[in-house]
Amino acid sequence: MVSGAVQMVVDSKSKVETTMEVIRQRIAGRSLLPGGKLPSIRGFAQTLGVSPSTVVDAYERLVAEGLIHARRGSGFFVANQSVPLSLAEIGPKLDREIDPFWISRQSLEAGDAMLKPGCGWLPPSWLPEEPLRKALRALSRAEAPVLGDYGSPLGSPGLRQLLSQRLAGRAIECAPDQIILTESGTQAIDLLCRFLLEPGDTVMVDDPCYFNFQALLRAHRAKMVGVPMTPAGPDIDAMEQMLEAHRPRLYITNAGIHNPTGAMLSPVVAHRLLKLAEQFGLTIIEDDIFADFEHSPAPRLAAFDGLDRVVSIGSFSKTLSASARSGYITARPQWIENLIDLKIATSFGGGRLNAELVLSVLSDGGYRRHMERLRARLAQAMTQVAERLQAIGIAPWLYPQAGMFLWCQLPEGLDAADVARAALAKNIVLAPGNAFSVSQAARGFLRFNVSQSLDDRVFEVLGGQIQG
Amino acid sequence: MVSGAVQMVVDSKSKVETTMEVIRQRIAGRSLLPGGKLPSIRGFAQTLGVSPSTVVDAYERLVAEGLIHARRGSGFFVANQSVPLSLAEIGPKLDREIDPFWISRQSLEAGDAMLKPGCGWLPPSWLPEEPLRKALRALSRAEAPVLGDYGSPLGSPGLRQLLSQRLAGRAIECAPDQIILTESGTQAIDLLCRFLLEPGDTVMVDDPCYFNFQALLRAHRAKMVGVPMTPAGPDIDAMEQMLEAHRPRLYITNAGIHNPTGAMLSPVVAHRLLKLAEQFGLTIIEDDIFADFEHSPAPRLAAFDGLDRVVSIGSFSKTLSASARSGYITARPQWIENLIDLKIATSFGGGRLNAELVLSVLSDGGYRRHMERLRARLAQAMTQVAERLQAIGIAPWLYPQAGMFLWCQLPEGLDAADVARAALAKNIVLAPGNAFSVSQAARGFLRFNVSQSLDDRVFEVLGGQIQG
Repeated sequence: MVSGAVQMVVDSKSKVETTMEVIRQRIAGRSLLPGGKLPSIRGFAQTLGVSPSTVVDAYERLVAEGLIHARRGSGFFVANQSVPLSLAEIGPKLDREIDPFWISRQSLEAGDAMLKPGCGWLPPSWLPEEPLRKALRALSRAEAPVLGDYGSPLGSPGLRQLLSQRLAGRAIECAPDQIILTESGTQAIDLLCRFLLEPGDTVMVDDPCYFNFQALLRAHRAKMVGVPMTPAGPDIDAMEQMLEAHRPRLYITNAGIHNPTGAMLSPVVAHRLLKLAEQFGLTIIEDDIFADFEHSPAPRLAAFDGLDRVVSIGSFSKTLSASARSGYITARPQWIENLIDLKIATSFGGGRLNAELVLSVLSDGGYRRHMERLRARLAQAMTQVAERLQAIGIAPWLYPQAGMFLWCQLPEGLDAADVARAALAKNIVLAPGNAFSVSQAARGFLRFNVSQSLDDRVFEVLGGQIQG
Repeated sequence: MVSGAVQMVVDSKSKVETTMEVIRQRIAGRSLLPGGKLPSIRGFAQTLGVSPSTVVDAYERLVAEGLIHARRGSGFFVANQSVPLSLAEIGPKLDREIDPFWISRQSLEAGDAMLKPGCGWLPPSWLPEEPLRKALRALSRAEAPVLGDYGSPLGSPGLRQLLSQRLAGRAIECAPDQIILTESGTQAIDLLCRFLLEPGDTVMVDDPCYFNFQALLRAHRAKMVGVPMTPAGPDIDAMEQMLEAHRPRLYITNAGIHNPTGAMLSPVVAHRLLKLAEQFGLTIIEDDIFADFEHSPAPRLAAFDGLDRVVSIGSFSKTLSASARSGYITARPQWIENLIDLKIATSFGGGRLNAELVLSVLSDGGYRRHMERLRARLAQAMTQVAERLQAIGIAPWLYPQAGMFLWCQLPEGLDAADVARAALAKNIVLAPGNAFSVSQAARGFLRFNVSQSLDDRVFEVLGGQIQG
């Protein structure tokens, strides 16, 4: 039998414990968010039917545990050790230098004083500036609904008609109603991930692959497995083993020119890949945003497959404008119906003006001539940058047939993350290999965008680091 | 002991069963998708080490079960009874007439011959056409990066500066860096849902509420509870009970003029609501897209709360253009950091040209004058439509202080879904109450957009139905 005084201590101790437990549960259950304010002492005491001093004790012990903190004069707040969905904290911890988000943000935030050989797009002066200005002037005279009203759920019929014709040029046969316009290529893949994935599903990507695929898949809480790349496409034997072992739901890859390697799918790899996809019930997203850079089109999975289990996506951000963004999904008719509902729910109408602008530019003869000049300019830059990199000991993994990317190996022993860190201190944004590699197997690689690598300073700084 | 022949039958039966089971599992595990092609008979027989006739038997029995179907000459396909994420199939089954998706799609797909009293936006001729044309002409002369390059992750500094000033006019104090631009108001809420919700979380909405909140929350697989509306905001006593019973993570509501009811938050309701939010650890998204319609601003939760647990979102689709879409999120600084990563992952840069267009229009004196005229025009239309509706027995629930919506009750006994179905046959798109109601408690209501209800035919058709 315990004495009254001891009983009182036990009671009040258990009330403090209980109060602490309620707070812990609210934080764990996310009804109290990191950074969120805790209930007021008086109010919470009333809610729980305990004395204010019990709540004070409980809060102070939670402060000592680091779970909450006090802010002078304004109350108690949940500590910030975790946030609801911090993408940077899903998946393995990476050096900031090889974190996919970091490279995107560095490139997007870089001022004019920065050089950006690591960024994934052309300098604005390489884009079809005159056709864009002309299209904007034409838009300023458009009918009122074009200027002010929502578009139809599928998006501009004129642009979809034109895209259907352009896709036929890559042997992808589809009716305009099998095309749904989106606000960007990224949004197209995001919409498809919403449609096709559940949290925890496994997705196969190329290793290396475009780093934002990884960022996007993290946002969908998908698991990733990487299939090694060869110059003719993914390594099919490795892919078969991965399909056996991991049964991924989805494979996301580039059509035509692969980012970052510049590899191009061969017909035999395409055929074997689609046989495996059928065998393992794999759906494929083929990201076809670099099509207009090709001198002659590589085989498309979507063409071989007839849009059965392959979905093709495209955009104009790389060739036309990243400011007036517009993308699209090409898929089997039945999926388009479901994608319309998802598009309305998550972005309502959207993108009509940009779609009209893209249609206007694409319909203009000036765009075709611009692209011809651009392909020649990129080929020239590719030769020049490859030579200058080789001169300082940086070797292209392959010499791409087209496009803007050179995937290069550093001299033995150098870590691309170190090189990128040092270069950033000199106002140069690089793209180190492991940002592209799910298996972190590319620490000796860098991706160069040849259109952003023509400044002497790039080679001076890199050369200095390699020799130093 | 079984004879050899019987044993053989048993074996082959169990092989067929096993084969069927493998297919069932692939469908259940979604490695075979609805509409997807089954493995070829020969290939699958080889994979499983059974005879082709076993696979044929298995497939034919699955056809009989309705799980798959045969398409002449092209093989077997998974039946379409369910799709990966069919929004229409999440949540309760609704009549097509009161399905949130259906109203959006009807309104978005409606041709010029349709009247749309049920749609949620102004006719294009009510938008600031001349300021938009002027802004497009100005854009056609902008510097190359404005035309072609990605924007910074937060979006146009000029527009964020201006928004910060405009928010101060509603007593919402925030630095420009607490504002992140999005591609629309819907995308703003979607981004916040990604950040704040897990599948299965409960979200509180108003009952009735803007129907696309429900569509969006279905896409996030959230549960919904609805708090009844009063003319001064949500019913606070009911809200307290719901918070106790359901512990929702999030409350999504309108700022200022409520959609669909036209209700306006009173200061006392705002204060009690925020006290409850603190007590129950509730985060609030305040959707402030109708601000420019107000004659004088109603209290904002975001202003009272100082952007602690309230996030404010806005857009220009209702007042400026739904073709050049642009939206924004205003939140506490720490959340903005996480939202940047999510925005990059799911839509990369995005929306620069539209943001510049919006900035140009908002900075133009013509826009302010246009909005003054528009408010007067809406007030006039409100009077006129309310009178004409009352004349045929349709009674406004309240007479809104501003905006474009009239929430109206049909004569006793009429079901708004029936009325909407009959009106659609006469090329009039209505918005029946239950599309807005989580609890399906608004079958006698319709929402009218007064700017889209000025045609005599609206009242002729409705009047005919009410008397008929």
